[in-house]
Amino acid sequence: MSWVAKPLAGLLIDITGVLYESGVGGGWAIPGSCAAIERLRAAGYGLKFCTNESRITRKHLVELLQTHGFNLTINEVFAPPPACVTYLKEKNLRPFLLVHPSALSEYSDVDCSNPNCVVVGDACEVFTYENMNKAFRVLIHGDQPVLISLGQGKYYKEDGELALDVGAFSVALEHATGVKPYVIGKPSSVYYKAALKELGVAPEMALMIGDDLVNDVGGAQSCGMRGVLVRSGKYRESDEHHETVHPDGIVDNLAHFTDILLKHQPRAHLV
Amino acid sequence: MSWVAKPLAGLLIDITGVLYESGVGGGWAIPGSCAAIERLRAAGYGLKFCTNESRITRKHLVELLQTHGFNLTINEVFAPPPACVTYLKEKNLRPFLLVHPSALSEYSDVDCSNPNCVVVGDACEVFTYENMNKAFRVLIHGDQPVLISLGQGKYYKEDGELALDVGAFSVALEHATGVKPYVIGKPSSVYYKAALKELGVAPEMALMIGDDLVNDVGGAQSCGMRGVLVRSGKYRESDEHHETVHPDGIVDNLAHFTDILLKHQPRAHLV
Repeated sequence: MSWVAKPLAGLLIDITGVLYESGVGGGWAIPGSCAAIERLRAAGYGLKFCTNESRITRKHLVELLQTHGFNLTINEVFAPPPACVTYLKEKNLRPFLLVHPSALSEYSDVDCSNPNCVVVGDACEVFTYENMNKAFRVLIHGDQPVLISLGQGKYYKEDGELALDVGAFSVALEHATGVKPYVIGKPSSVYYKAALKELGVAPEMALMIGDDLVNDVGGAQSCGMRGVLVRSGKYRESDEHHETVHPDGIVDNLAHFTDILLKHQPRAHLV
Repeated sequence: MSWVAKPLAGLLIDITGVLYESGVGGGWAIPGSCAAIERLRAAGYGLKFCTNESRITRKHLVELLQTHGFNLTINEVFAPPPACVTYLKEKNLRPFLLVHPSALSEYSDVDCSNPNCVVVGDACEVFTYENMNKAFRVLIHGDQPVLISLGQGKYYKEDGELALDVGAFSVALEHATGVKPYVIGKPSSVYYKAALKELGVAPEMALMIGDDLVNDVGGAQSCGMRGVLVRSGKYRESDEHHETVHPDGIVDNLAHFTDILLKHQPRAHLV
C-alpha cells in the first residue's frame, strides 16, 4: 500500500462513481460513502470534491448529493463551469456553448454574441449533427479560434451503461479543424493545481481518488499527487493493466479506502 | 507543370467539388466539367470516378450526375459502400450501420444482427448522441471489435457551407474506445490500388484530381500516383501552404486541368 506510507493532509475526491452512481431519478449512493466522508472529516483531512460534471450546476449537484445523505457544501465542489466562466471573461472570449441545457445558467452573464470560441461540455442529446457543425464553423472560419473542453473524459457510466463523454466530441472538433482543445477540468494540471490551492495543500501531501484511470489517477500523478483508483463507477478490470497509468493504489470503494487510510494515518497530517 | 511532364494513361477523378457542387435540389455542375469529361474520353484517357460519397447509392449518384449533363455509368464510379459490403462478407462481420438512410439499401443483404463491428459513413443527421453511443457500446464491449470508416474526410462543402465529414466521428469513436478505424475509401492506399486495378493502370501512369488536399492529393501520392488539387469545391487558400502535402499541380477546375493536359498530351499514353 504505497499510497498510505507517506503523510497526507488533503484529499481530492471524484463524485460520480465514487460518492454515487448516476442514473435515472438521481442515481444511488455507493454503500459506505456517506459514512466515509464523515470519518475523513472527523480525522481532520481537508476535502475537495473534484468533478468534471458539466451537465448540471454545482448548486443542483450539491442538492442531489444531499438527498443521498451526503453532507457537503457548494464551496467544497470544484467543477469546470465556474472556472470556465472566469477564463472566458479574462480572455474576452464570446463562446458558442455546446453544453447541457441544465448547465446553461452557469453562463448567464457571459456574452455569447458573434462567437469567437467554442465551449464543449458533456452536452448529451445536444450533440446533434447540426450543433456539432455550428461549433465546427466557429472554429474553421475563426481568426485565432479557441476550443475549450470541460474535461477530456472518454466515457462515463450512467444507469449501468457506458456513455460517451465530452472528450470524444472535442477530439472530433479538433480533428476537423486542427484547433487543440484547452482543457478546463481533469486531467489538466492547471485545473488540479487550482483545486489544491483552494484546499491549501501541497501536491505531495495530497491524493486524488476516482474511477477514471486516465483523468483522475493519471492526471493527479502528473501534477505530483498520489492517485488511487476505485473499483466502483465505470471501473473496468482492464484498468488494472493499463500501458502507461499505474495507480498508487486500487481499492474496492471509498469506504475501503477510508478503512485503510484511517488504520495507517488515523489523523490528517498538518500541512 | 511537373504533373504533365510524364506520360499519363488513366485518371481518377473526384466527384463532389470537381464535377459538381453539392447542395439543395441536387446542387449544380461546375462550369466546363461536363465538356472536360468528354474531351478526356475522346483523347483516350481511362477514367474512374473515385468518391468517398456514402450518403447515397452509386445508382442515385449516377442518376444525379446525369441530370447535370454528365455522361457516365455506374461501373465507372468507385465508392466505399460496395467495397465495404465485400469486406464485411469476407470477414464474417455483422455491422451496426451508422450510415445515411439514403445509403442503407447498399447493405440490404448484410447480416446486421448481434453486431460485432461498426460501419461509419457520412451519416449526417443520423449522428445523434444516441446513435454514437450505440456504436460506442458495440466497440467498448466487443471481443476484438472492428471499426470501419467509409473514408476519413474532415469536412466537405454543401450549399456553400463547410460541414463535418465522417472522419470527425470515426476519430471520436476511436478516441473513446481505442479501436483504430479500418478505412475503406480515400485516402487508403488499399482502396486506391483497388480502383487502379479496376482501371487497369499502374500508379506511375495515373493521376488523381480532387478538392481534398489530404485525402485526394496526399492519398494518391502515397500510393505512387500524381495528385492535382482543384481550386473548386471545398478548396481553401490555406491548402496551398500545407505542412506536409504538396500537390503535383494546382488548377482552377477540371476544365483548366483538361486544357493543360490536352495541350501537352493530346492523346493518352497506352499502358
